[in-house]
Amino acid sequence: MKQVNVFEAGSFSDQSFTRLLVHDSPYMKILNFNYRPGQQMPVHSHDIEGQVSLVILEGEGEFLGGPEPIPVKAGDVLVCDIAEPHGLRARTDVRLLVTIAPPI
Amino acid sequence: MKQVNVFEAGSFSDQSFTRLLVHDSPYMKILNFNYRPGQQMPVHSHDIEGQVSLVILEGEGEFLGGPEPIPVKAGDVLVCDIAEPHGLRARTDVRLLVTIAPPI
Repeated sequence: MKQVNVFEAGSFSDQSFTRLLVHDSPYMKILNFNYRPGQQMPVHSHDIEGQVSLVILEGEGEFLGGPEPIPVKAGDVLVCDIAEPHGLRARTDVRLLVTIAPPI
Repeated sequence: MKQVNVFEAGSFSDQSFTRLLVHDSPYMKILNFNYRPGQQMPVHSHDIEGQVSLVILEGEGEFLGGPEPIPVKAGDVLVCDIAEPHGLRARTDVRLLVTIAPPI
């Protein structure tokens, strides 16, 4: 069993969002991204099979990728295809946990 | 894109832990379990391929399955094989997010 506390291991930076690789295996990849207000995960997509879940652990922001930004907040679990455009903009400090399966 | 707020959709019960199916696809299954103090996910395992992540969204408790209970708290991301014994006991109210890939 692997154990990582992302509240302790994940940092914030005024320069850009931070990225922590929590887990990588043939089954899933887990990443923790932390954003200061205004920082964002640019909209992107990959033309491959699989899905990505975005779990908002703390904070508030907006999901990007659709025609309109969609408000998101702590407790939100977002799931989309990896091939579907997805991104996130932080309105407050945001701790995000991303799980990709199968991993890319 | 699917969006579920587990802080709002997930409930607690004094009778037993609660279970909310957040997402099920060929790629991953996501469940939210909520526990009152003392409630637990009994130790279990399945003799199949794949991994399970346990994300402690809120609260404190103990991971079960090894020789000794392991303290866990909010922000912890635990990953183990589905074939590896795993369980959880809550010490406070605990909100747990479980992701299984590939889904079972």
